[in-house]
Order: sequence, then structure tokens, then C-alpha cells
Amino acid sequence: MPAQQRRAPRIREVPVGIDATGTRTESDSLGAVEVPADHYWGAQTQRSLIHFDIGDDRMPKPVYHAYGYVKKAAATVNARAGRLAPWKADLISRVADEVVAGDLDAEFPLYVWQTGSGTQSNMNVNEVISNRAIQLLGGRLGSKDPVHPNDDVNMGQSSNDTFPTAMHIAAVQAIDTALLPAVQRLRDAAARKSEQWADAVKIGRTHLEDATPLTVGQEWSGYVGQLDDAIDHLRTTRSGLHRLAIGGTAVGTGLNAPPGFGDEVATELAALTGYPFVSAPNKFAAQGSLDALVRTSAALRTLATALYKFANDMRWLGSGPRTGLGELTFPSNEPGSSIMPGKVNPTQAEALLMVCIQVIGNDTAVSMAGAEGNFELNAFRPVVINNLLHSTRILADMCDHFREYLVEGARLNNDQLAKNIDNSLMMVTALSPVIGYDEASRIAHRALDENLTLKDAAIKSGVSEKLYDDVVVPEQLAHPGAAKPRPSA
Amino acid sequence: MPAQQRRAPRIREVPVGIDATGTRTESDSLGAVEVPADHYWGAQTQRSLIHFDIGDDRMPKPVYHAYGYVKKAAATVNARAGRLAPWKADLISRVADEVVAGDLDAEFPLYVWQTGSGTQSNMNVNEVISNRAIQLLGGRLGSKDPVHPNDDVNMGQSSNDTFPTAMHIAAVQAIDTALLPAVQRLRDAAARKSEQWADAVKIGRTHLEDATPLTVGQEWSGYVGQLDDAIDHLRTTRSGLHRLAIGGTAVGTGLNAPPGFGDEVATELAALTGYPFVSAPNKFAAQGSLDALVRTSAALRTLATALYKFANDMRWLGSGPRTGLGELTFPSNEPGSSIMPGKVNPTQAEALLMVCIQVIGNDTAVSMAGAEGNFELNAFRPVVINNLLHSTRILADMCDHFREYLVEGARLNNDQLAKNIDNSLMMVTALSPVIGYDEASRIAHRALDENLTLKDAAIKSGVSEKLYDDVVVPEQLAHPGAAKPRPSA
Amino acid sequence: MPAQQRRAPRIREVPVGIDATGTRTESDSLGAVEVPADHYWGAQTQRSLIHFDIGDDRMPKPVYHAYGYVKKAAATVNARAGRLAPWKADLISRVADEVVAGDLDAEFPLYVWQTGSGTQSNMNVNEVISNRAIQLLGGRLGSKDPVHPNDDVNMGQSSNDTFPTAMHIAAVQAIDTALLPAVQRLRDAAARKSEQWADAVKIGRTHLEDATPLTVGQEWSGYVGQLDDAIDHLRTTRSGLHRLAIGGTAVGTGLNAPPGFGDEVATELAALTGYPFVSAPNKFAAQGSLDALVRTSAALRTLATALYKFANDMRWLGSGPRTGLGELTFPSNEPGSSIMPGKVNPTQAEALLMVCIQVIGNDTAVSMAGAEGNFELNAFRPVVINNLLHSTRILADMCDHFREYLVEGARLNNDQLAKNIDNSLMMVTALSPVIGYDEASRIAHRALDENLTLKDAAIKSGVSEKLYDDVVVPEQLAHPGAAKPRPSA
Amino acid sequence: MPAQQRRAPRIREVPVGIDATGTRTESDSLGAVEVPADHYWGAQTQRSLIHFDIGDDRMPKPVYHAYGYVKKAAATVNARAGRLAPWKADLISRVADEVVAGDLDAEFPLYVWQTGSGTQSNMNVNEVISNRAIQLLGGRLGSKDPVHPNDDVNMGQSSNDTFPTAMHIAAVQAIDTALLPAVQRLRDAAARKSEQWADAVKIGRTHLEDATPLTVGQEWSGYVGQLDDAIDHLRTTRSGLHRLAIGGTAVGTGLNAPPGFGDEVATELAALTGYPFVSAPNKFAAQGSLDALVRTSAALRTLATALYKFANDMRWLGSGPRTGLGELTFPSNEPGSSIMPGKVNPTQAEALLMVCIQVIGNDTAVSMAGAEGNFELNAFRPVVINNLLHSTRILADMCDHFREYLVEGARLNNDQLAKNIDNSLMMVTALSPVIGYDEASRIAHRALDENLTLKDAAIKSGVSEKLYDDVVVPEQLAHPGAAKPRPSA
Repeated sequence: MPAQQRRAPRIREVPVGIDATGTRTESDSLGAVEVPADHYWGAQTQRSLIHFDIGDDRMPKPVYHAYGYVKKAAATVNARAGRLAPWKADLISRVADEVVAGDLDAEFPLYVWQTGSGTQSNMNVNEVISNRAIQLLGGRLGSKDPVHPNDDVNMGQSSNDTFPTAMHIAAVQAIDTALLPAVQRLRDAAARKSEQWADAVKIGRTHLEDATPLTVGQEWSGYVGQLDDAIDHLRTTRSGLHRLAIGGTAVGTGLNAPPGFGDEVATELAALTGYPFVSAPNKFAAQGSLDALVRTSAALRTLATALYKFANDMRWLGSGPRTGLGELTFPSNEPGSSIMPGKVNPTQAEALLMVCIQVIGNDTAVSMAGAEGNFELNAFRPVVINNLLHSTRILADMCDHFREYLVEGARLNNDQLAKNIDNSLMMVTALSPVIGYDEASRIAHRALDENLTLKDAAIKSGVSEKLYDDVVVPEQLAHPGAAKPRPSA
Repeated sequence: MPAQQRRAPRIREVPVGIDATGTRTESDSLGAVEVPADHYWGAQTQRSLIHFDIGDDRMPKPVYHAYGYVKKAAATVNARAGRLAPWKADLISRVADEVVAGDLDAEFPLYVWQTGSGTQSNMNVNEVISNRAIQLLGGRLGSKDPVHPNDDVNMGQSSNDTFPTAMHIAAVQAIDTALLPAVQRLRDAAARKSEQWADAVKIGRTHLEDATPLTVGQEWSGYVGQLDDAIDHLRTTRSGLHRLAIGGTAVGTGLNAPPGFGDEVATELAALTGYPFVSAPNKFAAQGSLDALVRTSAALRTLATALYKFANDMRWLGSGPRTGLGELTFPSNEPGSSIMPGKVNPTQAEALLMVCIQVIGNDTAVSMAGAEGNFELNAFRPVVINNLLHSTRILADMCDHFREYLVEGARLNNDQLAKNIDNSLMMVTALSPVIGYDEASRIAHRALDENLTLKDAAIKSGVSEKLYDDVVVPEQLAHPGAAKPRPSA
Repeated sequence: MPAQQRRAPRIREVPVGIDATGTRTESDSLGAVEVPADHYWGAQTQRSLIHFDIGDDRMPKPVYHAYGYVKKAAATVNARAGRLAPWKADLISRVADEVVAGDLDAEFPLYVWQTGSGTQSNMNVNEVISNRAIQLLGGRLGSKDPVHPNDDVNMGQSSNDTFPTAMHIAAVQAIDTALLPAVQRLRDAAARKSEQWADAVKIGRTHLEDATPLTVGQEWSGYVGQLDDAIDHLRTTRSGLHRLAIGGTAVGTGLNAPPGFGDEVATELAALTGYPFVSAPNKFAAQGSLDALVRTSAALRTLATALYKFANDMRWLGSGPRTGLGELTFPSNEPGSSIMPGKVNPTQAEALLMVCIQVIGNDTAVSMAGAEGNFELNAFRPVVINNLLHSTRILADMCDHFREYLVEGARLNNDQLAKNIDNSLMMVTALSPVIGYDEASRIAHRALDENLTLKDAAIKSGVSEKLYDDVVVPEQLAHPGAAKPRPSA
Repeated sequence: MPAQQRRAPRIREVPVGIDATGTRTESDSLGAVEVPADHYWGAQTQRSLIHFDIGDDRMPKPVYHAYGYVKKAAATVNARAGRLAPWKADLISRVADEVVAGDLDAEFPLYVWQTGSGTQSNMNVNEVISNRAIQLLGGRLGSKDPVHPNDDVNMGQSSNDTFPTAMHIAAVQAIDTALLPAVQRLRDAAARKSEQWADAVKIGRTHLEDATPLTVGQEWSGYVGQLDDAIDHLRTTRSGLHRLAIGGTAVGTGLNAPPGFGDEVATELAALTGYPFVSAPNKFAAQGSLDALVRTSAALRTLATALYKFANDMRWLGSGPRTGLGELTFPSNEPGSSIMPGKVNPTQAEALLMVCIQVIGNDTAVSMAGAEGNFELNAFRPVVINNLLHSTRILADMCDHFREYLVEGARLNNDQLAKNIDNSLMMVTALSPVIGYDEASRIAHRALDENLTLKDAAIKSGVSEKLYDDVVVPEQLAHPGAAKPRPSA
């Protein structure tokens, strides 16, 4: 009965879709189940749909697309080793391509809240590929013949190794194709502002209180530096995802997978996706834990931390228009109030702050789930991948929107900057090395108490006007060492 | 121009839906915007769609349904006071009913990641009601005439008071109609098991280690007790949501709302919904903070904590079938493995654990967002309500599934219980008051070291068989005081 | 051998302290251990000191003080039932009084990171009371005769019921005697400021942007309202701690405790402490979970959330002195900078923000620990009580400091308030009901674009000066309904 | 008046300590303050003690030791540039050595809950060094002459750059000298166990349910792999701490520090400590954020996640002794129960789980604090460094204790392993590739339903005994590819 010995059957070019109504009987080891006749999925998918229709959180589609690669790569390696008939491997690969392309997305309806191993999503993929392959061969759907969901599509695999493999692939793709470029674009936009405003002197603030001057360009270089570091750290950390569990099968020993299977499939996956995937050196760690994903989620959270500060500064620096700090003006994207006419709010910054808070919350979930593995399996995978991909997506989209609708259109209120410089007292700091900290303190307090400018207070306190004018030059105070900040990474 | 003076126009019975293609020009204070011609929404909704298409998190529909009540109640009160023409109030109410019923759900497409006040969702409602009303009058969509989104639909209101009002209503409804009943059903199912197994003696476990006996019924009464307390606490805590911000308008002072407006609208909302809503005594707290929601989220989290323990116990007590604790057997809902034939897993428990972890993560987000209010507004509302409703929904659904697919079908493995009782050593505790703790310890250690039963070790150590048999009676040890546990709430 | 039959021995009045050097041999069921001769503790305490000297987190002393009450109450009840010789009960009670008074604090050195049940701390108490009692009788320390740590001091008890009992007592005392009064004092101080500044009109801010006016008193009434609610919720929630696990002994069944023991001891504890303690209705819930503490920690966290907003507003409203919002001035408690002379910072607000963040972090730990119970015991008790008491203490102390050193000394900068009122544009809102939202918007935008006052822009746009002056009266805008905010709880 | 021009005064060899009672008057820019006469600290330290005696959390001593290095390095560089008299630099360095050595620990009493910049701790160091130096010169304490706390000890520095510098140094030292070695020792101990038990076959468990076999050595190699990765990630991540803010002074511009000061001091610090410290490339990021510490805290949390799984597995695998999984036996370190004689519990595992939970909670605090920076300063530094050092310390100590008192003494229960292998059904997986998944499933279900061994069920179902014996060989199933797991890093 081994499929390997059959001749290659003829493939009929049928587009995706089943022209049927009502239900079809599918079966698994627990018996028969009626499934919708117009869908490819089988008994186990249907059981999961019944037992887990909880909320509306669905296993993210990128996980299935990643699974398409896994099934294709496994079929290729199995055929190469003579374990799977070449025609069958070709057929599985062909359908897997449809999975990767999203053509079968409607066939993957399962919920996040399912078995903790992701087995039901793996079986969903196996069943769909089996039935789609059978359709292409003109066979009977649900017959599992001649392409069996377990024996053929899942050959040499377990959910326990393939699901984390698919999680890693999906996460790497989302981070590399969507998030990292979006953060980089935001970083570059901030860098352009930093250059543009390199000479605009402003009063610095520490503890929210007036401090010594710096340039707006320097202030923005700080955002650039934070993002540089966050990008660098995320890139380094997500490299841990390049190591795949594939080859470990049920408990990490690789039972039912031939020697070298993990390495070969990983190599195949690297070729298919363009990422440097390898087989994880220790499958027991790779399947018993989710540590690489936990670390990556933490890196997303630190990115969120950096973005939070950026957005928070923006909304405060732009506050006003008349009674706030008012140093920056942002594009008026939308009316800001249903009751206060003419109000405009820093909505992009608020959305970004909320996205960051969500990412921090998601990370809490990932962290706790990551700790809860037992023995040969961490059975909290779906909640981890859903949160991780959620965080990745909203961060990526948000960075682009924040850049496009707030950062790029930000303008300086030069009048406000100048007024602040004129009024501020903390430039007394520059006098401190000359007249001593204690005397400088007295001048600052005097200016405040007597409502004087710093210069007036200094002169009244015995500082010569020449000394004052020589030392207290805002532009120079902002560049005391004439050194430009470097990018940090 | 005041609408109040017009005569009541004739209403045309047009079903929901706009028979148009292409775009329509709408406008707001920032100018004109093209919107899809087959939708009711206006300029501000469209701006939000453009500026915030971030991820796929949409403002939950229950918020809009709640907003339907708010708009209806406000119109009623405004009309009663003669501020709004009665026909206009009737029309707004009629469309608000459609909003409540979900008939206009497709018109509320906005994202969670938007302005932190929820203004865009409020304006979305205002615009849709305005245009739908205009349609019913045969007017020109986008003309804002004769039903203006701000002047009429939003009369006496601000997003700053109506959005938290809608959040509270939506949360109360979700908790009262979905979550509390589902938890109660689970609690009752557990109570039935507790009664059913009231006489089944088993070995207790503390620190995962063998301890003194109890009955399975007692063990399950603990789950019942935890759920009783969680229900009670959630009920008490969500009562804080009965206090509504309505009437505070822009900053809590009630500007542009007549005196008593908040009280009257709250009374109307109570009548419409059946919940004891009142106007919040302090609007500055009600709008500047989200504390009542933060508290409610924390109550959901503690419910999750209680459920976590229940589900965790279940999966451990059901572990096996041959090498685990094996005291319980659960229904075989689905095959458990793509590679290991015949495997069945405690998937409902795993799903519940993951749901609880998500709720804990969501609560982290709610908590941080709740802390971040500034001055007269906490501008982190959308992230809070989205997480709160998410938690509520998945907890409710999960409780029902866990009950139906695991708890109700759970069976006892009496052989395993009996074997454990026979083997256990900790019944030595019953001897302790008679022979002293130190001697009892020696007997227990001896039994373990010499691989004896407790009885053999006791007798070898000089305890008379009669004393042993009198004192060490598992059934009695489980009921030393013959006291039944009471429900805890 | 039963102690009950002995006659009451004579007690020697020896002050606390052992006049000995070197070590003394103590023993337990695992054998002999050398302990420092000048300490009362025994073998199990010493073993714990050796095996768990991890960091420097010690089990908080209030837990031991609470344990003093438990041991006294149990001895009293045991004696009353004739299970314990009256003289022995008296002696245990006497030493327990020393424990309560803190006289034996130096004898309780154990770490937080120990057994998850708190058994080692319970045994520490048992051993110390045993040896101190023996000392008072002139006996041999370590002999366990005639007052045995397990058979006598621990009679009818287990760590599994007494440790959560002590946790509840310690938490209730800390909350009721320290935290609630401190929050109330802060609330009252804020209320006084609210009254003091009832007529000071200021510009409101939503989204950090200028909004309509309110009074400073109204703004502060919001803090009062938040604190009222937080106090109310904390009070309600901590009532769950009044239910004590006592009587459940090892696994909740009450083995080795006579019927009614839990109720009697709880009654005794209520009498001793003045709090309405009762025996928990379900001991399996009380010992298998930590839910009541988890809920209380969450209530602390929501208090922190409310305080966070208060402190954050303070530091922003006080920012400056020259380039910030500058509406408030706080006492200059300390110089603010080692380099910037004359700088003063809102340090009390910063400390409070950090305390709140710590409380939120502590609550994360409590929440996760609370979920991790298994079967008849939640074995994560020490980390929970340590975090809970830590949060309670720093919140209590912080509220007093924030009140004394920032709130009570806060002063208004009336010039800044007036300037803001003069410049703001959002009072256009008051015109909106008269001239319509759209026209009002145009005026606001014109004022901003042409750098006009609102009045000038209104008049240029056709609003009559009379209408403007009639409608736009800041004091009236702050009190549109002339309604005073009520306290919220 | 410049100190540089004075001749080097004579130093009197006075040991640390002030022989005085009562108080001494010290002063700062806000006036005079009485301080205890037997302490070196000055006015600002005293003010902080008064205004911030909140709880009992003190700024960790390692921060002060690190500050000793900073002050020494700065003095050295200042002297080299001719800004500070050589004798003064020498004197400051000498006292700084005392600070580093801990000789002045009693002089650093400040609380964690203080100014968010750490200024008060910096001034504490400055004041103590100043007065100790003055003492060594025979001068008058509090005179600030000839070694001024600001002008001399703090020369070229601000708290804003030195405090994060000291935080980084303290964190690196704690991680490198205590934590990383302790984790490595635990990892090595686990690796030895993995080798020792390389041939002990056991039943694997996924979803807590029986799965296919592996060796105990393989299972433990998973812990090794997780720890390898955690070590690697922590090492990489803490490298971000090698970049120091020093040189940025007040707001990042380096005002009052000469060009190159940051680089030179960092070089000096590298030489003094042996770690590769450098000056941070962007001071605005380094002072406005705490991102490098946030990332490091996250790395500690992931280490905690890995340890959590290890400890959790331990306590479950060791559960029993009669009714649990019972595969492992741990040393009996302490009696486990005050009521159940002879009970022994997995207390080291429980302590480790609690430590991990604390680390996760601490990380929540660090994360939120890290997000809250504003403009040129993140003013949440003390809460961050306190949590980070706390986590580091308890993890380090815990790893050593868990290793010494649980891991190294763990023993295998070979009888239990063998019994489990004999009883398990999941070895049917090995038959699956031969007879197909569906037939294999039927055999497994039959065995369970009819209470047969797998072999009996297989033979009854038509599998030949020879085939069964050839395929189902546990030892071979554990090593299907005969490949040993590699270390993962």
C-alpha cells in the first residue's frame, strides 16, 4: 500500500474552491464528523471549530503561510530520501505554494484558543493539503487517499516541532519585512529633522523643569539614538528565531524522522524564504520552551519603550496652542473635538502611546506563557504567537503613520524657542565654573525671587556684563565641546 | 436657522443602505473629504480611517451599540427641555435604535488606535446618525441639514463625557449578560461535581507532595468557593461602572449642557438598558481617570487567577493515561497529536490557561493606560475598552466551553484514588496527636526508607494494630469535624 | 506523657535574651543541627537559614507579629477545650505577647525565598516560643520539653492554615492602621486645596491641549474623587481578608483540629486585634488559593493608578519656573541639581510616581503567584505577602510625604492662570450653541492662523461684542450649571 | 581663589569615623541644616533623609561603590587637564577608594524613593567625599573648603550623566561577577546530570500526557540548552551597559565638561574596573532614556523564564513520594510540614519559582519606568536600578542554592522510569510509519479501552510479535537518529 510505489497520477487543473453544498463526512481516530462540503478541511479542524469557538481571535494567517513553506520543504526532503513518491511530493509542494500565497486562507478558520501545541492548526494544514491534493487528482475528498494528512503531508513531522518552526518563520518574516523597515523609516525621518534643526537652540528640560540649552537637533538625535539601539537589539535578538525546532518531532528525539531531517528541511526553508534558518542545536530546549520568542517579544517591548518616550515628548512639546509648551506644531489631521470647535490634538502620538501600552501588555502575556512549559512541550504556543505577531504588526503600522502624519510635518515655533531662551535661568550653570556653584545658586534664586532676567540678577550680584556676555551664549552652551552626537549603534 | 422651529418633516421608510457608488464629498472644519458613497459616515470618520489604519483592531461594536443608547437618551432629554425639536429627537432616537440593534454595524469601521478620547468614534456615530436621519427625510447626505452631527446629535455632549459613558454601558452589558452568567454556570457545574463526588476519598497534595486525605467533593468545593468569591467581587466592582460621566461635557464642568442634563440622561439610560446607571458625582474624576474600568479589569484578572488554578488542577489530575496522576478522565474531544496515534490532551484546560494569561496581559495594558491620564482627560480610552471587552468576551466563552467540554464530562478513576490512598504515608498525621509529632515522623521516614506501607511501618515501630485501625481511617480523616464546607460568598 | 496532666510549673522572670556563646544542638525529624547558642530558634529555622540565604529579603516582621496573635488564640482555644494544660496555654500566650510586641524580632531571621507554604516561618515561631517558654521554666533549650514546638505550640494547626491566617492579619493591620489613614489624610489635604481654590479659574486641558475653563478647585476635586473611590474600593476589597484559613490544617479538612476550632480561634483573633475576623467558609479555597490577597493587591494597584495621575498633574502644572506650564509652585525642599545652581525639582511627585510603578510591578508578581496554586496549597505565599506588605508600606509613607512636602505647601501662580485664560481659544465652545459648531470652528481657526485673541477673531467674523461678552465669561464657563461637584464615594 | 593654585596640604592619617556627638551645621543653596555630627554627609543628604524616609528601600550600596570609581576617574581626568590641583585629585581619589571598598557604606543612607535623577545620592557622595577629604586635611567639616562637593568632587559632572554611569557600572559588576558565574555553575551542574543520565530511558510527556520515550539525559540537555541561550543573550544584552552617559553633564551637551571628558573618564573607568566601558555615542539617548537597563532587565526576565521551567519540571518530576510522578528524588533538606510528620517538599524549586516571579514583577516596574522619560531626562532612575540589582542578586544567589541543594543531589528512581516505559502506549508512534497512523491509533485506543499493554493490543490487532519487537525498542526510540543533542549557544 505504500504510496511511494504508485505511478504518478494525472493532475487536473482545478482552481481553488469546492463546488458543493451541505456537508461531507470526514473522519479521524475518534470517528466521523460532518464538515461543510464547500471547505477542504477535515474532521480535526471541524472538531476544533466546535470545541473552541471562543471570542474572535483567530490563529494569524502568517502562521499558515509559514506552514506552507514547512510542508513543502518536508515533502521535498522526504522525496529526496525516497520516503515519499516524487509525484506526491510535487503535489504537496504545489498545494503548499497555494497555502503560502494565501489562496487557501479561507480554509484556516481556527481560533487562537485551542490546543496549546498548535496541533489543530497543523492538522488543519495537513487536512487541507490532503483534500486539495486529492481534488487535483480527481479523488474523493475525505478519503485520505492517495495523499494522507498524517502519513504523507505530516511525514517525519509532529506539531511539536513544526508549529514552533512555523511560529519562528512567521515572526521573522513579520519583523524583517514589516517592522524593521518601518522603524528604520521613522528613525531616518527623525534623523532628517535632527539635521534640519541642528542649529535651533532651545531650553532643555530635566524633571520637566527648565535646564541648560541644547539644540532641537540634539534633542531629536536622542530619538534617533534610541531607535538605532532598539533596531540593533531587535535584529540581534530575532536572530534567535533562525533556529528551528524542525526535526525534533514528538518530544525532541526526532522519532519517525530520519537522521539529518531537521538540518535538511531547515536548509530547504532557508532557500525558500531567504532567511538563514538552521536546525536548532537542542530540540528539547526548542520544543520545551518558547524562549527565543519570549526574548523577541521583550525586544519589541523595549522598542515600544523607546517609541513611548518619543511620542510623549512630541505631544508635550506640541502642547498648546496657547497655554502649553508650544515648541512644535504638527499637521492638523482631524478636528479634535465634538464639542470644542477648532481643537486639534496630537492624535498620532496618542495612538502610538496606546500601541506601545498594548505591546507591553502583550509582552506580559508572552512572558508568563513562556514560563509555563512542562517537560517536553511548552503548551502555550498559540497565545504567544498571536501576541507576538499582533505587537509586530501594530508597531510596524504605527511607526509608518506616526512618521507620515506627525514627524514629517512637524514644524518649529521659533518664537517660543527664543522666548524660552530669553527667560530661562539655568544658563547660570555656565557661570558656575567661574564664580563657583554657591554664588551661581544665589544669582539664580535672586532672579526667580525678584522676577529678574538672569543677566540682570547676575549683574546686580556683581558679575560684570562682559563676563556674562562672554560666558552665557546659548548657542555655545548647546555645543560646549563643539562635538556632534554620533549615531549610537 | 435653529432646527427647533421647523415643522416636523415627513419620514420616508427607507431600509438601511445607500444605493450609490463612487464617492461623496463630506466636510468638516478642516475642509472637504471624499467618502465612499455607499456609506453613511462623514468627513471625520474618513480622516480617521486614513490616518489610523493600523493593524486590524477595530473599536468593538458593543461600544457603538452603547453609543446608540447615549444618543437616544440625550435626544430625549434635549427635546424634553425644548432644546431640540421633538421630531428631530424622535428621528435621532429612531436611528439610534438601529445603531443599538446592530443594523448599522458596517458603518463603524474605525480602529482602536485613534485619538485617545474616542472622539473619532463619537463623531463616527454622530455622522452616521446625521446622514441616516437625513436619508430618512429625503435630504442630501453630507449636508448636515436638518440634522447636524455636532449641533443636534451631539447636543449637550462631548466625546469626553459620552465616550466613557458608552464604555461603561458596554462593559456592564458584556459582564452582566455574558460573563457573570457563564461563570455562574461553570460554578454550578463544579458544584454538581462536588456533590456527586462528596464521598470519594482521595489523597491530598500540598507542594505537589502527598498529604492527608480529603474527598474529591471537598477539593471541588474549593473551585466553587473561589468562583463564588470571584463572582461576588466582580459584581461589586463593576457597580462602579454604573456611574456615568455624562453631563461633564468637555472638561467636567458641563459647559453647553443644561443643569441636570447628566442626571436626566443617566436616568434615561437606566430605563433604556435596565441597569442602575446614575450620573457620576464627580465629573473631573470620571473624565480625568479611568479608575472604574481599571478596577473592573483587575476583577477580571482575579477571576482569571481563580480559573487558572482550576484548569491547572484539571490537567494535572487528568494527566496520564498511564504515567501521570490519572485521577480524572475527560472527554476525548479531539485527537491530540499529528504524530502520536491515540493521544488525547486536556485541550480545554490549555485553552483556558491561555485565555487567563491573555486576560492578565490585557490587564497590564489597562493598568498602565489607567495611570496615564493628564489634567481633564485620560486619553488612553480606546486601548482600555478594547482590552476590557476582549477579556470579558474570551472569559465568558471560555467558561462555557470549559464547562461543557471538560467539567461536565469529567469522570473519576476510582482505582487510582484507592491505590493512592493505600500507598500514601501522610495519614501518619492522624497518629501525631496520639503518639507525638516526632515519633510519627520516624514512622513515616521508616516506611519510605524501607518501602513499607504506613501500617506496616507503624506496627513495626510499636503502634498497636488496633490503635492504627482506629485512628487511620481515610474516610474519617477527610471529615475530621464532620463539617461540610459551606459556599464562601 | 500528655502535658495536660502535669502541674503548672513555676515561671522564672527572665528577660528576653540568652546569655550563651557558641552553638547549641537542636534537632528535628531529619536529625541534629547546631544553632547559635544566643538565639531561641531551633533546627528547622537553622536549616532554612542555611538553605535559603538568598539576597536580603526577609519575611516581614508584621507576619511574625500576626503569628503571635495566632499562637496565642490557638493556645487559648486548645486550653479551653482541655486539650492543652492551662499553664501551658498561659505560658504560650505570654511568649506570644512578646512576639506581638516585637520583643523577639531578632529571632525571626528567615528569608522570603523559602518554602512556598511559609512552613519554615511557622516553625521558626513554634521553635522560638517553645524555647523561650522552656527558658522561662528553667528548662533545657532544644529539649522541646515541656513545651513542644509541634505538639503544643502548633497544636491543632498547620502552616497551611496558619500562614495564610497570619498573612491576612498582617495585611489588614497594615492597610487599616497605616495606609487607609494616610490616603485619607492626603485626600483631605487635597480637599482643602480644592475648597481654597474654588474660585480660581484656569484653562482646562484635554489631550494636553487647551480646552474650556474650569476652576482649580474643580480640578482638585477630581483628585479627591479618585481618592475617595480608591479608599472605598480598598476598604471593600480588603474585607475579604477578614476570612481566615484557620481551622483547615493540612489540606483544608481540619484534620487534627477539633470541630469548631477555626471558628473559635477566629473569634479569639477578632477579640485580640479588634478586626472582624471570621473563619473562612471554604478552607479548600482559602488554602488552595491566595485570591483575597490577589484582589487586595489589585486594589492597591488601582490606588497607585489614581495617585499616579495626581502626581503627574502636579509635576506638569508646576513645571517651569520660566518655560513650563507654571500654574503651581511647590515648596523648595532640596536643591535639585549638582550642576545647575538654583534648580528645584518636583521630587515628591517623582518619588510618588516611582512608588506607584513599584506597586504595579509588585502586583504583577502577586498576580502571577496567585495563579500558580496546585491542589490543596498555593505554594507561592511568601512572595505574595512580601510584595503586598511592601506596596502597602511605601504607599502609606509616600502619601504622607507627598501631602506634607508638596500638596500642603502648593501655591497658585495667579498671573499665569490669568494669562492663560486671556490667551486661550477654546472658550469659543460657549459660542457654539448660539452660532453653531461650524461657525465657531472657523473663528477658532482664524484666531490661531491670524494670531488674534478669540474675541478679536469673533468680532472680525461677525459676532457682536455684546454677544461675545455675554457668553464668554470664564467664571461662568467654569460653572455652567452652578453645580458643585460632590465627593464621589 | 581657584583651588588649583594652592600648594598640596599635608594629609593626616585619620581612620574613617568622626568622633563627635550631637549635630553639626551644614549648608546648601537653600540654607543651613543640622546633620548628625558623627556622619560625613551634608545638608542635601540630610534634607533627603527628612523628605524621603519612605519604607525601607535604600539605594543599593553597589551604586555608591560604582560612584566611587566615577569620582576617582573624574578627578584623575580633571587633574590631568590642569582643571583640578593634583593634590586635590589625589585626595578625592583616595577617599573614592574608601567609597569603593565599602568603608563609607554607613554614610550612604538615602532611600530609593527620592529625586528621579538620583541627584541626592550623587550629592551624598559629593558631600561625604568632601567632608572626609576635609577631615584628612584637618579642616572644618561642612566648610566645603578646600574640597568643595560641587566645584571639586562634582567637577565636570552632573547627576544626570554620573548617576546612569554609576547604574551601568553597578549593574555590569553584579551581572558579571555574581549572576553570570552562578548561572554558568548551574548550567554545568545540569550538564553533568545530563551526561550522567544519558542512557536512562524515560517516557516523555507533552501536554502533561504520556508521549514517546527519551532519555533523562536528553531531557536535562534541554535545561542546559535553555540556560546556554539565556547566558548568551544576557551577555550580549548587558554589553549595552558598557556605554556610559559620562560627559553629557546636565542635558547631554556636556556643558561645563571639557571636550573629550566623557571619553577620558570612560577610559579611566575601564582601566579601574576591568570592563570595556566607553563613552555613549549619543548622550541625549543615554540620559533621556534608560533603554540599556530596560533591555538588560528583560534579559534577566527571560533567564527567569528559563529557570522557571527547569524548577517547575523538577518539582513535578520529584512529586510523590507515593502518588506523584516520582521519577526523581531530591535531598531532604528540611522537614516539610509542621503538622504532617515525615513530609519533605521541593522547597528549592519553590523558592526559585518565587524568585522568578519577583524578577518578572520587577521587570514590569523597570519597563514602565523606562517608558516614562521626558525630554532630556528619564527621572525614574532609582526605581529602575533598585529593581535591576534586586533581580540580579536574588537570581544569582538562587541559582547557587538551587544547584547545591537540589540539582547536585538529585537521584533517579529507576524503578519508576522502567514501570512507566512498560505501561506507556505512545510507543505505538514507532509503528505508525510501518502500519499507518490510522491503524496505529486504533491499537492505542484499544490498549486503553481494554486495559492492555501496547504489545498485547498490537498483537491482538494483527501486528506480528516480531515486527513489534523490532520496532518498539524504547532505547532506540529515544535515539532514532543516534544523534546527540548539541549545546545550543
